[in-house]
Amino acid sequence: MDSRDQHINFMRIAIRLSEQNVKKALGGPFGAVIVKDGKIIAKSANKVTLKNDPTAHAEISAIRIACKKSASFDLSGCVIYTSCEPCPMCLSAIYWAHIDKIYYANTKENAAGIGFDDQFIYQEIAKPHADRIIKSEQLLQDEASDAFSLWNESELKTEY
Amino acid sequence: MDSRDQHINFMRIAIRLSEQNVKKALGGPFGAVIVKDGKIIAKSANKVTLKNDPTAHAEISAIRIACKKSASFDLSGCVIYTSCEPCPMCLSAIYWAHIDKIYYANTKENAAGIGFDDQFIYQEIAKPHADRIIKSEQLLQDEASDAFSLWNESELKTEY
Repeated sequence: MDSRDQHINFMRIAIRLSEQNVKKALGGPFGAVIVKDGKIIAKSANKVTLKNDPTAHAEISAIRIACKKSASFDLSGCVIYTSCEPCPMCLSAIYWAHIDKIYYANTKENAAGIGFDDQFIYQEIAKPHADRIIKSEQLLQDEASDAFSLWNESELKTEY
Repeated sequence: MDSRDQHINFMRIAIRLSEQNVKKALGGPFGAVIVKDGKIIAKSANKVTLKNDPTAHAEISAIRIACKKSASFDLSGCVIYTSCEPCPMCLSAIYWAHIDKIYYANTKENAAGIGFDDQFIYQEIAKPHADRIIKSEQLLQDEASDAFSLWNESELKTEY
């Protein structure tokens, strides 16, 4: 099986997860698969409503499973196959997890077309604080900076 | 106690969580508190290294606790106090959770100053796919669109 066939196989598994999730009324139409060294180490559908967890998108759920299985917070060397372009939450999680590459099928515009906020949140993040729908206010930066100095000086810390 | 004093009190709790996390070598210098109707319903420090979960930032961990406690994926009516400006993963999670307002102390520039990638990930998200460090490739959109049609037509779905 050549490399392109492999990518197609893994993506079809992610797509099947997305379809089954809707057919069984378990959650949104999204699935993701994480692969390392040509083997699946994690897969998940979207579990937001099932788990009452707004962060339980397919990609984040798969990342959590893959990290648990690897006993590591670092997924370097892994590839993610997701049935839809990651929302900014999941894209950022992919960065934090150091995943090597993303294969996606549907786009954020497709997701917007069936009522999901992915594209809207991309637009919000790009705005200055003052222009966003959810307002932000800064407080006590002078007091909070002590924790950052402690981190800088700590000899016990695990960097990530 | 007036409203400003209340905000300061809640932020000081978030800041204390961030400091204790470093002093006890449990994780990064970040803490978050979620408040509803003037009462704390969730608080967490960063647990990335403790839990081997790159998504376990203070804000996401607090959101998951608050949702579990509320038995809901929707935190409308809640406010979050975070010792540092949310990274794009956590900011997006705040949008998905429908939190009303964000109070923060340190900034993403401060976080960059002690080696965290928050600001870098903000920059990456704003770029077109082709210019990002983590590459993306589209596959099988024609096959993945079926799940979106199923979702559109489903009478059993729980929207979120």
